[in-house]
Amino acid sequence: MTITRGRDVMMEIREGDDVLLFLDQRRTYQVRVEEGRQFHTHKGYIEMGKLIGRTYGSPVKSSLGAKFYALRPLVRDRILKTDRRTQVLYPKDIGYLLFQMGIGAGSRVAEAGTGSGALTCALADAVRPDGRVYSYEINFRFQETAASNIERAGLMEYVELKQGDITEGLYEEGLDAVVLDMATPWLVVGHAHDALSGSGVFTSFSPTIEQVMKTVSALREHPFVDIETVELIMRRINVAENRTRPETLMIGHSGYLTSARKVLE
Amino acid sequence: MTITRGRDVMMEIREGDDVLLFLDQRRTYQVRVEEGRQFHTHKGYIEMGKLIGRTYGSPVKSSLGAKFYALRPLVRDRILKTDRRTQVLYPKDIGYLLFQMGIGAGSRVAEAGTGSGALTCALADAVRPDGRVYSYEINFRFQETAASNIERAGLMEYVELKQGDITEGLYEEGLDAVVLDMATPWLVVGHAHDALSGSGVFTSFSPTIEQVMKTVSALREHPFVDIETVELIMRRINVAENRTRPETLMIGHSGYLTSARKVLE
Amino acid sequence: MTITRGRDVMMEIREGDDVLLFLDQRRTYQVRVEEGRQFHTHKGYIEMGKLIGRTYGSPVKSSLGAKFYALRPLVRDRILKTDRRTQVLYPKDIGYLLFQMGIGAGSRVAEAGTGSGALTCALADAVRPDGRVYSYEINFRFQETAASNIERAGLMEYVELKQGDITEGLYEEGLDAVVLDMATPWLVVGHAHDALSGSGVFTSFSPTIEQVMKTVSALREHPFVDIETVELIMRRINVAENRTRPETLMIGHSGYLTSARKVLE
Amino acid sequence: MTITRGRDVMMEIREGDDVLLFLDQRRTYQVRVEEGRQFHTHKGYIEMGKLIGRTYGSPVKSSLGAKFYALRPLVRDRILKTDRRTQVLYPKDIGYLLFQMGIGAGSRVAEAGTGSGALTCALADAVRPDGRVYSYEINFRFQETAASNIERAGLMEYVELKQGDITEGLYEEGLDAVVLDMATPWLVVGHAHDALSGSGVFTSFSPTIEQVMKTVSALREHPFVDIETVELIMRRINVAENRTRPETLMIGHSGYLTSARKVLE
Repeated sequence: MTITRGRDVMMEIREGDDVLLFLDQRRTYQVRVEEGRQFHTHKGYIEMGKLIGRTYGSPVKSSLGAKFYALRPLVRDRILKTDRRTQVLYPKDIGYLLFQMGIGAGSRVAEAGTGSGALTCALADAVRPDGRVYSYEINFRFQETAASNIERAGLMEYVELKQGDITEGLYEEGLDAVVLDMATPWLVVGHAHDALSGSGVFTSFSPTIEQVMKTVSALREHPFVDIETVELIMRRINVAENRTRPETLMIGHSGYLTSARKVLE
Repeated sequence: MTITRGRDVMMEIREGDDVLLFLDQRRTYQVRVEEGRQFHTHKGYIEMGKLIGRTYGSPVKSSLGAKFYALRPLVRDRILKTDRRTQVLYPKDIGYLLFQMGIGAGSRVAEAGTGSGALTCALADAVRPDGRVYSYEINFRFQETAASNIERAGLMEYVELKQGDITEGLYEEGLDAVVLDMATPWLVVGHAHDALSGSGVFTSFSPTIEQVMKTVSALREHPFVDIETVELIMRRINVAENRTRPETLMIGHSGYLTSARKVLE
Repeated sequence: MTITRGRDVMMEIREGDDVLLFLDQRRTYQVRVEEGRQFHTHKGYIEMGKLIGRTYGSPVKSSLGAKFYALRPLVRDRILKTDRRTQVLYPKDIGYLLFQMGIGAGSRVAEAGTGSGALTCALADAVRPDGRVYSYEINFRFQETAASNIERAGLMEYVELKQGDITEGLYEEGLDAVVLDMATPWLVVGHAHDALSGSGVFTSFSPTIEQVMKTVSALREHPFVDIETVELIMRRINVAENRTRPETLMIGHSGYLTSARKVLE
Repeated sequence: MTITRGRDVMMEIREGDDVLLFLDQRRTYQVRVEEGRQFHTHKGYIEMGKLIGRTYGSPVKSSLGAKFYALRPLVRDRILKTDRRTQVLYPKDIGYLLFQMGIGAGSRVAEAGTGSGALTCALADAVRPDGRVYSYEINFRFQETAASNIERAGLMEYVELKQGDITEGLYEEGLDAVVLDMATPWLVVGHAHDALSGSGVFTSFSPTIEQVMKTVSALREHPFVDIETVELIMRRINVAENRTRPETLMIGHSGYLTSARKVLE
């Protein structure tokens, strides 16, 4: 079977692929497909080898008869499945940041900190096939986890992991965007200006309003325009006949998103 | 000057480029750079030819001495500048939809309706350089506007504009994603299932809750999993010493975002 | 000690009073003050009799040395402490409903269902000292709980508990307001119109949008004006130096609040 | 005609009453009923004398045949109709503040600043018939406007307007509650503690987060417990068949509501 259109080369499940086993919205598992491997759940185990050669989206029965679907993992799945040693951004925030930065195929972006590599994966996927992500992390242990997550997502060729303190400066120049998810973004504003190309985009994610105040204040002391801070609130809606309503419990706050564009004086 | 890094080929402003003239957050103008062209604002006119050869991000003075910056337009700028004959999606919604669909370089996506081409541009930029956007529109006049907007953004080579009624079916198969921004998305759910590859993503943007109810109901009648509806609320925060607060007036609602993934039975 | 100003007659704690023992925001206990009674907590027990004659707001040490404060319970405390057999309204909703209804001393209000008596207490407190609350409940067991709660709050003299099905009609006429917190409010709209005085206010609390649609539709079939539906979202803000931010987890939805005013034709 | 039930004494419109002429949700007018008076609107004029002796809620035709309804003004109507020289609180905020303060018939409350008297009216209506509102205002002109608004609402007998700077202290003691809607609430926290009875409630409304930070910090330096800050977001829902959705444009922020309770040490 030769499929040459778009991403269709991935339509058939092959040995070594990660699949997302979907039971229901709250129970999904990212598992490697390997001949002879059994994946155990409380609903029985699944023979992973049975999936080889089948089409993505196919159902597979567990030993106890529960029906799972073998989905192709998207970047958003990898983010939520990523090792949770560090707080991760939510899809609502990542989607907005990516779009706000205006990055795409070929973009060169710096990021700090790498954390578990969740945002790194999203950035790497966005700059494929000829862009590059420079990801700074001061904590050696986070970097190991991140490397393993990025590797597993097949995105390492687009990433340079850098161990170092970004508050002391960046090695790159002429970047399209810099994105910060770290405790003291305001200490990086000047360095980000140096590293960005003219008109390049600075973005930052911060949980507290004090971080935002300091970051915006630092941005105003450098040649940046279009400085703005927003917050995204996401509500899930339960849709069911005569029971349609927003979910009772929700994430009320993840963080503020600040962005700006570099200008020259 | 040979620049070979990433998008840096665009670092220097050239004749024929669109620049975003930035005065302040509320006053930005997307203008074509042409020798001899004068762009008039209430702050005086700008000799557009003066920008040729300068770096993106550079300041330029108007005839009355007002300082504008010549920014490189991002997709998000093009969206907000797009002809407003039809209601457009907001960046918060587009960023989320793109990320939710999991599309990127090489993806094949269908969209309906084309409208003014705002979402089309975002999709085309995301699937560069080897993906494709199939954009359906029933209204001939919208299509003309959209073509001009997509052309101006330099993204037409990734797009196929299709005049026709998507509620009668799609021509494509094995798509990575289908995204609907139209009055009756529920009439397309079955056709979208046919056109999607296994594990492909369906998304829909609808302003009213009745549209959501009908769409979710249709999704449940076909082999789709991971059906979810969310709403994104974006608050702008005014950050200024002793005056930090969310903006008084905000967009309270644009629409609901429904997504699902195709499975096989 | 003779205190004659306002509510100051309650400034001194007396035998038989309910006090709110406050340890911290998450640990508060409403307890009856009685000579010889010991109230046990995981922080040791408190001799309730020690509080007699002391001033509201005073600290009291537990047997293990933990400091509690003896606060005067407000209606809002009683609501949150009310037996939770039924879902209760939140203070944000009750405050809005009370203000929207325009009720106050002397008002005559009907309510359904009584539930645990939480809203009943708020209404009774609002119409003191010469108003009246007519509270309908079809479920006998709820009524027993409610009676005990209202009694304990000392508000029974302003309340008439009525066991019966309000969808069959109200006994009252010339009411200032009718407030519904029940599954099928639309079945009461016509009866509420009959029971209200001209210009009287109808309000309803409903968790689902389908309930709202049916209720608004019923309101439009009767002489009502100023029909409006709102939803209140409350965010708690954690305020602490360099850690100020909205709370991570929040109640995303309790219900929709619909109101209208009766007119004559 | 002798009506003795509740507020029913107000069921019949009398000379000198204020009525709320209701055309639609956006066009309501609070007008004094006087023999011979004509009230002019763009839909023709209304002979106000015709309303004398009619029932509240009755329709009245303008000279051009437009149908208005004569509603009984509620406190919430007066607030929105109040002279807008100063920013006023919204019903969502007032309802919450009133409920949070736990005030009712007989309560003694201090307020600052008086502003246009909007919140003063709400407080006065809540403490009727035997409570009292002490309202501080430093600006003489605001006080004149407020006096006229409170007088017109028939609530002056429950109010003491005080011209003076509350940051220098309050004259009262043993108050049930203190509510601040002013630029520098943190300067009043200590004085509020002095003026409150044990267990009395402090509340403050502030548009900016810096005000909140300073106020909470001041509260923590005095014996207060149960300190909390919330923000209420109100969404209006447009309910109409196949067009049900939250309103597009909304008030995104009015202010933060901080509350606390006085304890003794």
